[in-house]
Amino acid sequence: MFQVNQGINFIEDKSLITQLDQLEIPILHQDVRPQAVVTVNQEDQLPQVIQPLNSNSTLEMARGEELILDFGDHQVGSLSFELESFGSPPDAPTKLQLSFGERPLEMVGSFAAYDGSLSRSWLQEELITVDVLPTKINLTRRYCFRYLKIKVVDTSPKYGIRLKELICHTQSAVAFDEASFISTEDSLLNEIDRISQKTLAQCMQEVFEDGPKRDRRLWLGDLRLQALANYATFQHNDLVKKCLYLFAAKTKDDGQVSANVFVAPTLIPDDTFLTDYSLFFVDTLLEYVKQTADQVTLKALYPTAMAQVALVQKKIGSNGMIQLDEGWSAFIDWQEELDKLPAMQGVVIYTFKKAVELAQMMQESERGEELIQLIEQLEKAALSEFYDQDRQLFKGLSGQLSYASQSWLVLAEVGSPELRRSVMQMTADSQGELVECNTPYMYHHYVAALFETGLKEAATAVMKRYWGGMVAEGADTFWEIYNPNKANFSPYGSPLINSYCHAWSCTPCYLIRKYLK
Amino acid sequence: MFQVNQGINFIEDKSLITQLDQLEIPILHQDVRPQAVVTVNQEDQLPQVIQPLNSNSTLEMARGEELILDFGDHQVGSLSFELESFGSPPDAPTKLQLSFGERPLEMVGSFAAYDGSLSRSWLQEELITVDVLPTKINLTRRYCFRYLKIKVVDTSPKYGIRLKELICHTQSAVAFDEASFISTEDSLLNEIDRISQKTLAQCMQEVFEDGPKRDRRLWLGDLRLQALANYATFQHNDLVKKCLYLFAAKTKDDGQVSANVFVAPTLIPDDTFLTDYSLFFVDTLLEYVKQTADQVTLKALYPTAMAQVALVQKKIGSNGMIQLDEGWSAFIDWQEELDKLPAMQGVVIYTFKKAVELAQMMQESERGEELIQLIEQLEKAALSEFYDQDRQLFKGLSGQLSYASQSWLVLAEVGSPELRRSVMQMTADSQGELVECNTPYMYHHYVAALFETGLKEAATAVMKRYWGGMVAEGADTFWEIYNPNKANFSPYGSPLINSYCHAWSCTPCYLIRKYLK
Repeated sequence: MFQVNQGINFIEDKSLITQLDQLEIPILHQDVRPQAVVTVNQEDQLPQVIQPLNSNSTLEMARGEELILDFGDHQVGSLSFELESFGSPPDAPTKLQLSFGERPLEMVGSFAAYDGSLSRSWLQEELITVDVLPTKINLTRRYCFRYLKIKVVDTSPKYGIRLKELICHTQSAVAFDEASFISTEDSLLNEIDRISQKTLAQCMQEVFEDGPKRDRRLWLGDLRLQALANYATFQHNDLVKKCLYLFAAKTKDDGQVSANVFVAPTLIPDDTFLTDYSLFFVDTLLEYVKQTADQVTLKALYPTAMAQVALVQKKIGSNGMIQLDEGWSAFIDWQEELDKLPAMQGVVIYTFKKAVELAQMMQESERGEELIQLIEQLEKAALSEFYDQDRQLFKGLSGQLSYASQSWLVLAEVGSPELRRSVMQMTADSQGELVECNTPYMYHHYVAALFETGLKEAATAVMKRYWGGMVAEGADTFWEIYNPNKANFSPYGSPLINSYCHAWSCTPCYLIRKYLK
Repeated sequence: MFQVNQGINFIEDKSLITQLDQLEIPILHQDVRPQAVVTVNQEDQLPQVIQPLNSNSTLEMARGEELILDFGDHQVGSLSFELESFGSPPDAPTKLQLSFGERPLEMVGSFAAYDGSLSRSWLQEELITVDVLPTKINLTRRYCFRYLKIKVVDTSPKYGIRLKELICHTQSAVAFDEASFISTEDSLLNEIDRISQKTLAQCMQEVFEDGPKRDRRLWLGDLRLQALANYATFQHNDLVKKCLYLFAAKTKDDGQVSANVFVAPTLIPDDTFLTDYSLFFVDTLLEYVKQTADQVTLKALYPTAMAQVALVQKKIGSNGMIQLDEGWSAFIDWQEELDKLPAMQGVVIYTFKKAVELAQMMQESERGEELIQLIEQLEKAALSEFYDQDRQLFKGLSGQLSYASQSWLVLAEVGSPELRRSVMQMTADSQGELVECNTPYMYHHYVAALFETGLKEAATAVMKRYWGGMVAEGADTFWEIYNPNKANFSPYGSPLINSYCHAWSCTPCYLIRKYLK
């Protein structure tokens, strides 16, 4: 999704900015202590408890020593601890190296040897030098971790150190403790529900973040899924509202919303634009209004939603096909080889149908009618250009078959219900011929398309196989990237930099509640 | 000087502790900015200016880049700077590695590869991760440096950083700017005077420190020399007073003062004891009282001074020889091979003579007389056991000849003035037969002994050769360790850990004023 687009003019909607001032999200805290000292085997990367800890535990360490603490579950928060010396008076500073990890693999992988494609500044580490002991260390940055490796770089031959009162001061916009979980006879499904809610909760901060470890940012594609999961669980609807306002308050001068925005030190839209993400503003606003009946927000943000539609509308050829020309990239999935056009045609139809609903809510029947006609053209083109009668599957102009194409054109409700069901059945039955889903994000859409076409069993099986695969690998939260056939796969060249608590993986709690209850 | 002596009982003198509360030393500050970006050649370690800087300069850096800033002179203080981004909005944290060095060699040596014997936590480095830009970075630790290497560990491919308003907020108990320097026709001597005062000023903090980079601590041996240099220059006599009280306020239960004390978080005497250092309390108190006529301090600290004498007195054999048995180590010099007994006999006589003066000031004439008789015995023994008639030099029982033995027995005024002058003349003329001085500390005593016996020319020549050697090597302040024949010598296995601004090197400003004006 990497783009550099300098010299873009952004415009600010002062009235929306003013509204944002009233949407401050309170952050909840809990104090969490480490539960054990563990070792992590380099080979199987399984943590083994070597010393259980309680709140009175102290840890004595000498120069050169290191240990790994297990905080029992995935945490997002700051860290504090007390540090004192034993032996002779400290005759040299204490230097500590701290490394934080969401998974055990970050405890055994070398941060120093990292050579992935993403910024190494995401690796969570601190070098702390303490001149005077005893002291209390307050690390006020926000870390995302279950495991903490503490290495005593040096003290001196004359003294050692004692650590105590290690506390992670957690941060989240919601109380995960108060979540309610499904309780079925299928313990794996129950576990998937719990972990997906945990994932969602950890990503709910001042905004819906994509991942609290990385990128810690509000992306529209993630927001759309988080909002759905949120309605089914925590129902923190003001957080959705705030995020919608954030996208709408500063847009490109032609009205396009950015793919993501930064909120510190102030609201800054990123210079990355993705056509599918921009269009999801429409869907996300519609769903928010349906959930809340918030007419004020509908009126305030309707123009932004329709601006996305209008911009894409210009890119539809007379043949009813969306043109993905330069400067109009789409995400769809982390999949280099994917021919994205059929899926993108699906996204356009899907979101334009949502736009019709919005227009109807706003009593803009003329605009609604115009869009309905356009959608007919788009659907017709999709069927004629992409539907392969022989294969009974959607196929790219390149001849490529993919899960993404099937899923999005089905979610867009292109073709009859029978055609769609047959497409999804064929997809589910296919034996490795289709270009795969590469992320939980794309898996969500595939599973949703299976459910939507009534293939409940197949959908459940995929969900249990995919998210259950992460459970089997010990996930405390669901990951940004997971390939069941490729352990520790990273599109960035190093699994150390992957986010292991990632918003777009949080949807099973929504899917289960929508389709299985 | 490394000792571990656990389980020592310290006693606290509450009345002296109370006095200390009234001896807070104000710290003066100046804001100093870097003057240039330099490169340092790995081979000759000479810095070359590549970009002069002024107060409006900004430094643009991209990921992976590093640069070296030259602050123009040796600085002791904290560091602050402003950091902002250019390019796309920062989509990953900024991670910076900062390394501080007193000399260019610390800019080219690898901290990571350090394998010296002292704690690597003395290496001045910070790893800083910044989540939100722009920001102001305040590094509140105290650094000791002229050079600062800034490495951008990472930003992201999308943005670079701009550093500005880089400021070292200096700290010293005195204003070096207001110092007065000698102005002779000998420009090297002038320079030695200036640099020795600079060295002294940088070590004058809340206490007289041995070195502001390392060990940042009050040692009695250093204090004695710093106090002498201070009387000749800054005359910050309250700082001497405070340091004397610090040693006296907490002593071993037998009354011995520690070789050094820590002052944070509270007064903590170290568990290192050195017989010569303990005895120097006597000398340092006497000189302070002579300089200030402070009778209150004389009365308050006289018992502590005499306790050092009494403890050593017990260690004098009936033959008038000091016994250096276990637990009674002496420093004299950083010199493994040195037979320290003759020098130690000299230190005892030297300080006992000072004790006589203190006893007389206190009208304790009986104690004075007792000591005078003891000194006679000590001197007699020194002459009969150590003076070699043939060589006309002092010789250890091991047969060893050393600068330390000659210097200390001469400073103690053992033998007639003619004998002492002849000893020092022989010493000055010797051709590498004597065990050498290894530190500026021992060089001070050698030069002082030359001056004391009237060998002004030889004394000046040694001073100019030794301290002038550091000047020629580009010293901004005088060093802890300097061996003219061995570049970058370190007794700790790495020149990276040597202190290059060290109190015991600061005495030329005193020697010049006492003997050459």
